[in-house]
Amino acid sequence: MTQSTSDKKLWGGRFAEATDGLVELFNASVGFDQRLAEQDIRGSLAHVAMLGQVGILTPDEVGQIQEGLRAILADIRAGEFEWRLDREDVHMNVEAALRDRIGPVAGKLHTARSRNDQVAVDFRLFTKEAALDLAEKTRALRAVMVGEAGKHLTSDGGEPIILPGYTHLQVAQPILLSHWFMAYAAMLERDEGRFRDAAERMDESPLGSSALAGTPWPLDRHATAAALGFARPTANSLDGVGSRDFALEFLSACAILAAHLSRLSEELILYSTFEFGFLTLPDSHTTGSSIMPQKKNPDVSELARGKAGRVFGNLMGLLTVVKGTPLAYNKDLQEDKEGVFDSYDTLSVVLRLYADMLPKTVWHAGATKAAAARGFSTATDLADFLARSGVPFREAHEVVGGLVGLASRTGRQLWDLTDEELRSAHPLLNAGVARSLTVEESVKARQSYGGTAPERVREQVEAAKAALS
Amino acid sequence: MTQSTSDKKLWGGRFAEATDGLVELFNASVGFDQRLAEQDIRGSLAHVAMLGQVGILTPDEVGQIQEGLRAILADIRAGEFEWRLDREDVHMNVEAALRDRIGPVAGKLHTARSRNDQVAVDFRLFTKEAALDLAEKTRALRAVMVGEAGKHLTSDGGEPIILPGYTHLQVAQPILLSHWFMAYAAMLERDEGRFRDAAERMDESPLGSSALAGTPWPLDRHATAAALGFARPTANSLDGVGSRDFALEFLSACAILAAHLSRLSEELILYSTFEFGFLTLPDSHTTGSSIMPQKKNPDVSELARGKAGRVFGNLMGLLTVVKGTPLAYNKDLQEDKEGVFDSYDTLSVVLRLYADMLPKTVWHAGATKAAAARGFSTATDLADFLARSGVPFREAHEVVGGLVGLASRTGRQLWDLTDEELRSAHPLLNAGVARSLTVEESVKARQSYGGTAPERVREQVEAAKAALS
Amino acid sequence: MTQSTSDKKLWGGRFAEATDGLVELFNASVGFDQRLAEQDIRGSLAHVAMLGQVGILTPDEVGQIQEGLRAILADIRAGEFEWRLDREDVHMNVEAALRDRIGPVAGKLHTARSRNDQVAVDFRLFTKEAALDLAEKTRALRAVMVGEAGKHLTSDGGEPIILPGYTHLQVAQPILLSHWFMAYAAMLERDEGRFRDAAERMDESPLGSSALAGTPWPLDRHATAAALGFARPTANSLDGVGSRDFALEFLSACAILAAHLSRLSEELILYSTFEFGFLTLPDSHTTGSSIMPQKKNPDVSELARGKAGRVFGNLMGLLTVVKGTPLAYNKDLQEDKEGVFDSYDTLSVVLRLYADMLPKTVWHAGATKAAAARGFSTATDLADFLARSGVPFREAHEVVGGLVGLASRTGRQLWDLTDEELRSAHPLLNAGVARSLTVEESVKARQSYGGTAPERVREQVEAAKAALS
Amino acid sequence: MTQSTSDKKLWGGRFAEATDGLVELFNASVGFDQRLAEQDIRGSLAHVAMLGQVGILTPDEVGQIQEGLRAILADIRAGEFEWRLDREDVHMNVEAALRDRIGPVAGKLHTARSRNDQVAVDFRLFTKEAALDLAEKTRALRAVMVGEAGKHLTSDGGEPIILPGYTHLQVAQPILLSHWFMAYAAMLERDEGRFRDAAERMDESPLGSSALAGTPWPLDRHATAAALGFARPTANSLDGVGSRDFALEFLSACAILAAHLSRLSEELILYSTFEFGFLTLPDSHTTGSSIMPQKKNPDVSELARGKAGRVFGNLMGLLTVVKGTPLAYNKDLQEDKEGVFDSYDTLSVVLRLYADMLPKTVWHAGATKAAAARGFSTATDLADFLARSGVPFREAHEVVGGLVGLASRTGRQLWDLTDEELRSAHPLLNAGVARSLTVEESVKARQSYGGTAPERVREQVEAAKAALS
Repeated sequence: MTQSTSDKKLWGGRFAEATDGLVELFNASVGFDQRLAEQDIRGSLAHVAMLGQVGILTPDEVGQIQEGLRAILADIRAGEFEWRLDREDVHMNVEAALRDRIGPVAGKLHTARSRNDQVAVDFRLFTKEAALDLAEKTRALRAVMVGEAGKHLTSDGGEPIILPGYTHLQVAQPILLSHWFMAYAAMLERDEGRFRDAAERMDESPLGSSALAGTPWPLDRHATAAALGFARPTANSLDGVGSRDFALEFLSACAILAAHLSRLSEELILYSTFEFGFLTLPDSHTTGSSIMPQKKNPDVSELARGKAGRVFGNLMGLLTVVKGTPLAYNKDLQEDKEGVFDSYDTLSVVLRLYADMLPKTVWHAGATKAAAARGFSTATDLADFLARSGVPFREAHEVVGGLVGLASRTGRQLWDLTDEELRSAHPLLNAGVARSLTVEESVKARQSYGGTAPERVREQVEAAKAALS
Repeated sequence: MTQSTSDKKLWGGRFAEATDGLVELFNASVGFDQRLAEQDIRGSLAHVAMLGQVGILTPDEVGQIQEGLRAILADIRAGEFEWRLDREDVHMNVEAALRDRIGPVAGKLHTARSRNDQVAVDFRLFTKEAALDLAEKTRALRAVMVGEAGKHLTSDGGEPIILPGYTHLQVAQPILLSHWFMAYAAMLERDEGRFRDAAERMDESPLGSSALAGTPWPLDRHATAAALGFARPTANSLDGVGSRDFALEFLSACAILAAHLSRLSEELILYSTFEFGFLTLPDSHTTGSSIMPQKKNPDVSELARGKAGRVFGNLMGLLTVVKGTPLAYNKDLQEDKEGVFDSYDTLSVVLRLYADMLPKTVWHAGATKAAAARGFSTATDLADFLARSGVPFREAHEVVGGLVGLASRTGRQLWDLTDEELRSAHPLLNAGVARSLTVEESVKARQSYGGTAPERVREQVEAAKAALS
Repeated sequence: MTQSTSDKKLWGGRFAEATDGLVELFNASVGFDQRLAEQDIRGSLAHVAMLGQVGILTPDEVGQIQEGLRAILADIRAGEFEWRLDREDVHMNVEAALRDRIGPVAGKLHTARSRNDQVAVDFRLFTKEAALDLAEKTRALRAVMVGEAGKHLTSDGGEPIILPGYTHLQVAQPILLSHWFMAYAAMLERDEGRFRDAAERMDESPLGSSALAGTPWPLDRHATAAALGFARPTANSLDGVGSRDFALEFLSACAILAAHLSRLSEELILYSTFEFGFLTLPDSHTTGSSIMPQKKNPDVSELARGKAGRVFGNLMGLLTVVKGTPLAYNKDLQEDKEGVFDSYDTLSVVLRLYADMLPKTVWHAGATKAAAARGFSTATDLADFLARSGVPFREAHEVVGGLVGLASRTGRQLWDLTDEELRSAHPLLNAGVARSLTVEESVKARQSYGGTAPERVREQVEAAKAALS
Repeated sequence: MTQSTSDKKLWGGRFAEATDGLVELFNASVGFDQRLAEQDIRGSLAHVAMLGQVGILTPDEVGQIQEGLRAILADIRAGEFEWRLDREDVHMNVEAALRDRIGPVAGKLHTARSRNDQVAVDFRLFTKEAALDLAEKTRALRAVMVGEAGKHLTSDGGEPIILPGYTHLQVAQPILLSHWFMAYAAMLERDEGRFRDAAERMDESPLGSSALAGTPWPLDRHATAAALGFARPTANSLDGVGSRDFALEFLSACAILAAHLSRLSEELILYSTFEFGFLTLPDSHTTGSSIMPQKKNPDVSELARGKAGRVFGNLMGLLTVVKGTPLAYNKDLQEDKEGVFDSYDTLSVVLRLYADMLPKTVWHAGATKAAAARGFSTATDLADFLARSGVPFREAHEVVGGLVGLASRTGRQLWDLTDEELRSAHPLLNAGVARSLTVEESVKARQSYGGTAPERVREQVEAAKAALS
C-alpha cells in the first residue's frame, strides 16, 4: 500500500496545518475497510443513478461516473487497484481514483451524501450478507449433522450406534449417537434463526441520511434502498448513521454459534482421546508433532474451541465501544468493522471444516457401547421398574442407590448382584430383573417425545430432513 | 435461611460419607434459585396433572400432590415458607416441604422427571416471561419517547425546539429535538424486536426430557407444554436439558439495550452540565452531595450508564461458562441464573426510571438553538447552495472550508463575512446568501425521507404512534 | 432493611422536590456497601482522632464521637444495627445513627471529609485486605500442592506415581504426578505474587482528598494513613478519589487465578471420568443425582470451572464502567464494589475447597501408569536414541513416525515390532532397543533442569518447601 | 505469501493421508507469528550454541547452523525471505529455509527441542520486550504530563490556569489545570509499575522444557536463559510450555492503561467542544469532514477511547481461551498471539500520539476560569467558613444548600445575595464573606497534602520530575 501523503485532503479547506504522519496512519482505515470496496461501489452506483433519476445530475454525468466506477471495480477485482494510506479510507480511495480517471465531474458523486451514510450503507450491506451467508453455512452444517444422525441409526451392523450420555461428564444413561447429532442440529437450527432475524432487522438502507440530519436535495431514498436490495430506507437519519446495533446483533449471534461449536469441539476432543477412544478423526483434519512422532492432534477442534475466545472478544469490544458514545457518528465507531470481519471469517471456516470433517470421522461402535454400559448407567431403569410397581420414586431411588453403592464397593455391576442381595434391598427385586437392564433395552424404552428410542430419533431425523429440503 | 443439615439428602443412597459443609454451601443454589419458586410449582402442577391424565398416578394422588403444592405456593407468596440451605435448591426445598406436608406420596411427584428438565423448564419460563416483560417496558419507554417527540414539535412557543446535531461531539448541523427523540425510539423498537424474537425462539418446553435421554414412562409432553403456555415441546431431550442459548440470546438482547440506554445517558449527562445547559433534570430524579451544598447530580443517568458494564459482564460470564461444557447438564450451568436475574432487574428499573424522568425533564429552547448556531453549523448548506448552482460538491466543499477557516481565525460567523470576502472565494456568493443561513432555514430544508425537517419528523411521530396503538 | 423515607436527606438543602421512591431505591447502595461498615468506622475513627490532634475538634468532641462510633460498630457486629435504605449508603447510615445516638456533635465528624474520599478509603482498605487474604489462601493451596507432590513421589509402593503427560489432550510423554502438581504450584506462586504486587501498589490512603480538590482544613493525612495501616497518603487528591485501577488490578489477578483454577478443574473432571479413571474424589466433595441413583458428580470442580465465567465478567464489567468516565467521581463508579466482593468470595471458597479436597483425593497408580504407556508415548525416546547416535533429529523423527504408523495400523505397540521391521526402518534399531522403552525409563531419563525425572522433581519440591516455610 | 503445499510435512511420518487444504490454512499461524522471527532466531542461536557447549553438536555443526540462521535473519530483515503458508508457522519456515540452505545438518537444530518450548520462549521474549517498551512509553507520556503540569503553573500571565473540577460532570470545586495533569501522571506511574512487575514475573526461560516433560539430553538451561537475557530458567517443564498467565498479565496491564487513556480522551473530547471551549487541539492531530466544511474533529482522542474496546476484547478473548484447557500445550493456545500484538501496537501508537499532542494543545485560561466559577463551585468554602466558626458541618451544609437553592431560583450567584438574605440564613454570614469566595481564593486555600493549592501542586511536580530523572 502506498503511503505517500502528497494527495490533498478532501476536507482540508479550513485547516492551516497538515495532519501529523502518525495521526494519519492511526486514523486511516483503508487497511481493513478496503474489504468494503464492492459494497462501496454498489452504493455509489445506486446513489448516482438516483441522482440522475431525480434530475440532480444529467444523464451524461451519471454515465461518466458510472463508467468510471465500474472500471475501478474491475481494477479492484483484478487486484490492480492501488490502495493509498494517505487517502484514509475506502471511500476516499475510490473517489480520488474516480477523479484521477474522469476529472472534476467525479466531485458530483458526493452530492447529497456524507461519508457517514456512505459507510453506514456499505457496512450494513456487508453485515447483512455475512449474516445470510453464515445462516446458509450453519444450515449446511446442520444438514450434515442430520445426515450423520440418519447414517448412524443403522451403521453398527444394521443397529444404531449407542453412546454414553453424560451429565457432569459422568456416564448417565445410554443414548443413540444419532440422538447426540440431532441435539447439535437443534442448536444450529436456532443459530440459523438468529442470523436470519438479525438480517431482517437490519434490512434498511441508511443511504440519504447524509451527515446526520438528512439533506435538502430531493433524493429518492426508496429508490436507492430498492436498488441495493434493502427492504426499506431507515426512518430516521440520526439513527441511520449513528446506530450500530445491527453489528452488535450479528456479533451476538456469532458468539452464541461459537459457543455451540466450542461445545461440539470439546466433545470431539474428548472422544478422540485414547482414554475415551470413541472415534478416529481423519488424517486430513489432524496434524502431528515436531518432536513426538506418534502424535495425531485434533487441531481443528482445538482451534474451533479456542477461536470462540476471539469471537467473544469481538462482541465485548464493540459493546464497550458503542456504550459510551453520544449520537450521531463518532470516530470510535470506526472500530466496528474488524471484529465483524474477523468473527465472520472465523466462523465461515469452522463451519466449513466441520461440514467436511464430520462425515469422514469414524465412530467405534464397540467402544461407545462398552462405555455406555459402564457406571451403572441403567440404574435409573431399575428405579423406574420399582416406581412402575407402585413404589414412590424417591423410595425407589434410595433403594437403587444403596445397590449401586454395594456393587461399586465390591467391584461388580448391578447385574452381578445376587438374588439375595437384591431381595434384601427390596422384595420386588431379583436377579432376573437386574439382568434385563442392558443398554439396548434402556435405549429402546425411552419412547417419550424427543427421547432417545430409535423410533423417536428416526422421527426427529425425518422431520429435520423435511424441514431442510 | 435455615442452614441445618439434618435433612437426608435426596440422592444419598450410594454415598458412604456425608457432604462437606463448605461444599454444601458452595453447591447450594437456593439462595438465588428460590426466585424460580412460582415457575417450579407451576411446572410441578402441570407435570402431576399430566401424570394423572396418562394414568401413572391415581386421581387421588394427583389431588393430594396438587393441594400440597398449592399450599406451599401460598406459603411462599405470604413469605412464610422456610427456605433451607441444606435442601440445596428450590426443587428440593419444595419437594421436601411437600413430603413434610403430605407424606410419602410426595415421592411420586418426581416420577419420570429429573432436576435437569425441571430446572430447564423453570428457567425457560422465567426467561421467556422476562423477555416479554422487557419487550413491554421497552415499548413503554418508546411510547414516552414518541410522546416527547410529538410534544417538542411545538413546545417552543409553537415552534419546534432546535438542537445541535453532533458528530464527533462537535456541532455538525441543526436538528429538531423531536428528531433526536425519534432516533432513540427507533433503537428501542429494534430492542423490543430482539426480545420478542428471543421469547419466540425459546418458546419450547423441555419438560419430559428427564435426565437427558427421555423416559420410559408414557408421558404426554405436548400436554405439559400446552399447560405451561409453551408453543411446543423441545424436539430433542439432550438439547432440552443441555442448551442455554435461550439465556445467552436474552442476555445479548439485554446488552444491546443497555448500550442504547447508556448512549442516551451519556447525552443527558452532557446536556445537563453547566457548559451545555440544554436541560434541567427533575429534582425527583437527581441527588446532592454530602460536602458540596450546591451539587445536583444526574445519578439516574450515571447509574444507567455504569450498569451497562454489569449487563455486559453477565453476558460475557455466561458465554464463557457455556463455551467449554460437553453435553448434557454440567454443574457449571448453575451459573446461568444470577446473571439473567441481574440483567433483568437492572434493565427493568432503568426502563421505568427513564419513562418517568423524560417527561419531567425541562428543555431550554433558547440555549439549544443558540448552541445549534455555533460552530458554522450551516456551512454545509452554503456548500449545497453552490453545488445546486452546478459547482461540483467537492469544489464547493473546498470553497466553504476556506471561508470557515477565515471566519474562525477572525472570530466571526459565516454571515459576518463581507461581500468582498465571499465573492473572492466564489463569484456565486454574496452577503445575502450567507445571511439566509439560519438554523431554522437549515432544518426546514432537510426534507429528504427520514430527515429533520418538521414535516418529516411529524410523519415519523405519527407513524410511530399508529404502530404503538 | 427498613425502607421508610421519613429521614431527612443529608444533602437536601437546595432541592425543592423529594427524591422519587424508585430513584432512591436505584441509587441506594447500602444493600451491598454495608459490607464496608468495619472499614468505614475504622476510617472515621482515624479521621476524628486526627481532627483532634490538629485542633479542629476538642478532645471532648473526639471522645463523644469515638465512643458513639464504637458502640455502633458493636451493634453491627452483633447484628443489631438497623440498616435503612432511605439512608442510601453505609456512610449515611453510620453517620445518621451516630447523630441519633450522640446528637448534633455527630455533624462534626464530616468536617474536612467528603463521601468521595470516605468511600475511596473504605474500599481500598477492603480491597487491600482482600488481596492479601487471597495471597495467603493461594499460598495455602500451593503448600497443599507441594505437599501432594512430595507425597506422590513415593506413594505407589515406594515408587513415584506416573501420569500420562498430554498435549492436545493426546498422550504425549509419561510424567510424574508430582511433576504435574508442581506445575500448578508454579502457577499459584505467580498468582500470589500478583496479589501482593497489587496490594503494595494500592497501599495509599486517599483520606483527606475530600471531594476532589483537597481541603482548606489543616489535616494531617500522613497521620490518618499511618493509623489505617497504609504505607503513605495518595499524592494527588483528584487521583485519590477518582481512580479505580486498584480494583481493576485486583480483579485482573482474580481472573488469572480463576483461569488457573479452571484449568485444574478441567483436568480433575476428566481424570475422574470412568474413561480416564485416574482418581476418586472424596464423597465429601461430590454430589449425586435426583433421578440417577448411581451418579457421583465432581460438582466442586465443575462449579470452580464455571465460576471463572463470573470472575471474568466482573473484570469486564468494571473495565467497561471505568473506561468512559471523566474525572473525578461519577456515580457509575458505585458499580465497582459488587464485582470485587463477588470475585473475592468466589475465589476464597474455591481455594479453601481445593485445599481440603486434594489431599483426600485418591489416585490410581495402576490406571495412570497404564494410560501413560498408551499411544506410543515413548516414541520420542526412540527418536532421541537415533539422534544420540548421530542421526539428525528430523530424520530420526521421520523414521519413528513411520514405525508408529505401522504399529498403529496393525494394532501393536512399538515394543511389539519385529527385529526385521525395526531394522528395515533404520539399521541402528532392533527389538532390544524398542523393548527398553518403558514409561519408567522414559521418566527417569528426563534429567534436564525442570524435567520430570524423579531427582529433578524432588529438587523442585524441596525448593518449594523451603520457600514456603 | 506462497501457499504451495509441495513441501513435505515435518511431522508427517505416521500419516497416511495429506492434510486438507482448508485445514492447513486454518492451522497455519505464519501469517501472524512471522512477527516472532527475530525472537525465534535468537532462541535458535542460543540453543545451538548451548548444544555445542555441552558437546551434543560439534563446533562445525554449530558454526554451519549459526551461519545459516544469521543469513536467514538478514533475509527477513531485508524483506527478502519467502514466507510459506504450507510451512505452517514461523518455526517451520525458518527450519525448512535452513535445510534448504545448509542441508540435512539443519535437522540437528531441533535436537532436544520441541515447538512447544520454542514458541513459549519466542513469545515470552516478545511479551517481555513489549511490556518493557510500554513501560518506557508510559513513562515518556508521564514525563510529558508532568512537563505540562509544570508549564501551566504559570502559563496564564504568570498565574496558574484554573479549571473546573467535576464530580458527576457537574462543576464541583475549582482546581488547577496542573493538578489535573498530575492526576493522570499518577495513574500512568502505576501503569508503568504494572508493566514492570509483569516483565519481572515472566522473566524466565522455558527453553529446554521440550515437549512438556524435559528431555534426556544433557542441556544447560541456565546457559540459554542467560544468553537470551532471562533472569532464570522456568522451574517446571510442564508449566514452562503450558502456562500463558504472562500474556494474561500483560493484557490486563494493557487493559487498565487503555481505560486510563480512554478517560483522558473522554475529557479532552468534552473540553474541545464548543460548549466547554476549554482547549484547542492542534490541526496536526485533528481531521475534517467530507461533507461539513467547518468540522474539526478530535479523532485521535475518539480512536483512543474506542480502541479501549479492542484492548478489553483481547484480554477477554485470551482469558476465555486459557480457562478451559488442560495441561500442557493445546492448539487453542495459538490464539494467544494476535491479541498481544494488537494490544501492544494499539497502545504504542496512542501513547506516542498523546505525548506529541498534549504539548501542542492550547488551553484557554479565561474560559476555564469562567467555567470554574459557575455552579456555585465555592459553596463548600462557605460551608467550611461556618464550620470553622464552630457550626457542625452538617448544619453548615444545610444552611449553604438553602442559599444555593435561593440563588439558583433567582438566577444569581452566592456573592449576589443580600446581607439580609445571608444573615437570615445564618447570623455568622454577611455579604463580605460571600464576596470573598473567588475561585482563586478557593484554590489557594486547599493546602492539604495532595490538594490543589499551587504550593502543593508545585511540590507534586517537583517530586515527579525528580523521580523521572
